[in-house]
Amino acid sequence: MKRIFIQEVVARDGLQNENQFIPTDQKIALINQLSDAGVDKVEVTSFVSPKAIPNLSDAEEVMKKITRKPNVTYSALVPNLRGVERAMKCAVDELNLLVSVSETHNLKNVRRTTDQTFDSFKEIMDFLANEDIQLNGSLGTSFGCPFEGDIPEDKVLRLIDNYLELGISGITLADTTGMATPAQVYQLSTNVLNHWPDLPLTLHFHNTRGMGLANVHEAIRAGVTRFDASLGGLGGCPFAPGASGNICTEDLVHMLAFMGYEMNTDLDQLIGAANYLQSLLTHEVPGQIIKAGKITDLHSASQV
Amino acid sequence: MKRIFIQEVVARDGLQNENQFIPTDQKIALINQLSDAGVDKVEVTSFVSPKAIPNLSDAEEVMKKITRKPNVTYSALVPNLRGVERAMKCAVDELNLLVSVSETHNLKNVRRTTDQTFDSFKEIMDFLANEDIQLNGSLGTSFGCPFEGDIPEDKVLRLIDNYLELGISGITLADTTGMATPAQVYQLSTNVLNHWPDLPLTLHFHNTRGMGLANVHEAIRAGVTRFDASLGGLGGCPFAPGASGNICTEDLVHMLAFMGYEMNTDLDQLIGAANYLQSLLTHEVPGQIIKAGKITDLHSASQV
Repeated sequence: MKRIFIQEVVARDGLQNENQFIPTDQKIALINQLSDAGVDKVEVTSFVSPKAIPNLSDAEEVMKKITRKPNVTYSALVPNLRGVERAMKCAVDELNLLVSVSETHNLKNVRRTTDQTFDSFKEIMDFLANEDIQLNGSLGTSFGCPFEGDIPEDKVLRLIDNYLELGISGITLADTTGMATPAQVYQLSTNVLNHWPDLPLTLHFHNTRGMGLANVHEAIRAGVTRFDASLGGLGGCPFAPGASGNICTEDLVHMLAFMGYEMNTDLDQLIGAANYLQSLLTHEVPGQIIKAGKITDLHSASQV
Repeated sequence: MKRIFIQEVVARDGLQNENQFIPTDQKIALINQLSDAGVDKVEVTSFVSPKAIPNLSDAEEVMKKITRKPNVTYSALVPNLRGVERAMKCAVDELNLLVSVSETHNLKNVRRTTDQTFDSFKEIMDFLANEDIQLNGSLGTSFGCPFEGDIPEDKVLRLIDNYLELGISGITLADTTGMATPAQVYQLSTNVLNHWPDLPLTLHFHNTRGMGLANVHEAIRAGVTRFDASLGGLGGCPFAPGASGNICTEDLVHMLAFMGYEMNTDLDQLIGAANYLQSLLTHEVPGQIIKAGKITDLHSASQV
């Protein structure tokens, strides 16, 4: 069976959406547990303005104090050149850039058109010209926009091309508000991999409308092997209060493990980390496996 | 695209698991809304001992007072001959029999071996010899047992054969405690439809471990067109407190509608019924769509 790569985004995408600041030491402990569990990549934080996202105001401290494992890539989201400068002082392995495919969503998010955003990426690439750093380009709202609705596939392909022309090696297609259907995922993934068969392509799904794991399954059928996921299923979107967030890492790894996929991630350690995460929060996480147990967790017939 | 048949089990599988008795008039109103929304089948109730399941003690009254639509099949679960006698006095369209593929689960559930259960089905069939009634045979724990673990496919096939030899027309494979993986669903569904290409086969999934809609998607790829689902995602299993229950009807219909499948069910009316159901309960239902909205429910960029 195929090797699948598990990329953890809870420390950034998950925690930035919480209504409480998770103390820095607890963030570090959480990330270290994820490293120990053998995830392939951790998005550690975002080097964004602390005023914009107070939950991630400890970006430098977290990035510097985590214990790094050799087989794990430690990534950080960088919204602009200021963020890149901050991240480079912390020796991150990978910088993750983000633009929305939807003009309206991008304008709301960063008050720039997508073309203006790519102009700013050009400045970042110039700044990094002599640096040995891995770069990933993310495309938000790749499967639909909560303002514009449908997103033309052609625009997704054109923005991938823009990223690749800048010299960026990996691409992430993000379903920012959980609008992707399995059929759409299969079609867009197939289309992208037909254009760029060797592209390290990540899909980033939300489970907002319950389709998260179905979307993963269809993406794998189309040839995708890299998935972002958030421990406990944290994350979410302001338009869907109470709905599920990002796809849940332990639920994802559970499904894939019992389908025979090869991963570097240990499910039991991941469940341990998810229970630790739950202990830090005042609400129930959306993930199912820490409530239901693994399908191999059998019960005694005499106990019921 | 294929026509998919939506079969509602909330009034039986959902409500029997609730910690409150839903008043009879509200059950009837709920079922009438489901009929109006155009589901293909409603499992209205179970003619089980009121002592065993007090929540369904009003089986006769509900069955007799609902408004019947010509294109909807009104079904009832019958655990034994006594239940069949009660159901036949209420003019149900279909009787649904149930046996677990797992011996241990069946013993726990009805204190009989599967062979003994099929002996009792033979008595039921003799009793019904001159009646014009549709019969469905359900196989619980078809994809795994919380006591025994793996369930051999051969045993599932043998019990389907047992049902068909009795003269039962439709078969339901139930994933009683949410243990099925998409790969397993594809394999077993393909196997069953290879043996009996014209069998009206229903799959009954739970979303206990988050794989519910992924399992539906794989079942459809294998040729299955009939699915049980529970409004709001009610239902559940005693081994997974706090986890999701049956797959959620409005989430299922939402996914399939936006993938272009043909159904008789109106998504907006179904969402209306789900909101009504939510108003009857004291806890939040697991379904996502009534929280997140449809993927076509767009937002104004100026409001955010």
